[in-house]
Amino acid sequence: MAAQQEVQNGGGAEKVADVVSFTAVKPQLFVEAPKANDAVQFYKTAFGAEEVSRTVHPKRKAEQELPLVLSAELKLAGFTILVSDLADDSDDPAKSTGSGGVVLCLETQEVDAAVKKALAAGAVAEGETVEGDSACCGGRVGKVKDPYGYVWLICSPANKSVDVEA
Amino acid sequence: MAAQQEVQNGGGAEKVADVVSFTAVKPQLFVEAPKANDAVQFYKTAFGAEEVSRTVHPKRKAEQELPLVLSAELKLAGFTILVSDLADDSDDPAKSTGSGGVVLCLETQEVDAAVKKALAAGAVAEGETVEGDSACCGGRVGKVKDPYGYVWLICSPANKSVDVEA
Repeated sequence: MAAQQEVQNGGGAEKVADVVSFTAVKPQLFVEAPKANDAVQFYKTAFGAEEVSRTVHPKRKAEQELPLVLSAELKLAGFTILVSDLADDSDDPAKSTGSGGVVLCLETQEVDAAVKKALAAGAVAEGETVEGDSACCGGRVGKVKDPYGYVWLICSPANKSVDVEA
Repeated sequence: MAAQQEVQNGGGAEKVADVVSFTAVKPQLFVEAPKANDAVQFYKTAFGAEEVSRTVHPKRKAEQELPLVLSAELKLAGFTILVSDLADDSDDPAKSTGSGGVVLCLETQEVDAAVKKALAAGAVAEGETVEGDSACCGGRVGKVKDPYGYVWLICSPANKSVDVEA
């Protein structure tokens, strides 16, 4: 039996500085393209996940029978999981992650401040912070790799009002 | 700009059967031992995560300066992230995952039914469902690998009343 302890979060100096607040943490699971559609179905059947929305890659839509899934958003126990096709020729963040498939999306209204704080703490930037849709969010998107190999997408919340009929 | 669509979750037959409800989804990040302690500090500094509790490996406590972290529970934006040391000689679930470090913990009061349902959907059992503490939960713990290589721990909620002073 393992010993368990409550941990004090040393309130004080370190929290006084630039406080960035996050609104959500969403694990994004990449699967070999074009299996994301199957994976979504599996998580629905196996775990009772509910698909909330799906974003597909528009350039692939005409060429392929099954459009590549940029991001399918699933709800499970009030939590969000994203499932995405990992395309060979894409710049999917999972390709550069030591986690080999999982990327952690952090939503915040303060993308630049959050990226700056992460870099100051020892994360490494993966490219520039840019405007544009990412697989999990909208608006500004930054990408950092932490010292332990995990990739975090730091981005403003997805604009859910831009829903388009398939 | 990607096309986005709202998705209907075909209510009906598939949901009538055995409904298992989950209470939480917690990504568990494994890092090379003994760096979990550093990783926790990093996530606190970089993202403002708060450490809620920590479970250490009792057998290592006397031998090593830094006890192995079985699981440190961090709160971030109301979500939970677990950070664990991945020991070479352990049976950590991350060792068998295609996700190379991330395991997804699903909390439920109905562990056996949930495991059964996942297996019926196409997941593969990783060992037996057993009683005992796992890194992320307490009580019964089952482990399955989905068809896309991701490992899910299905377990009853951690018994938070067993807090012990370090």
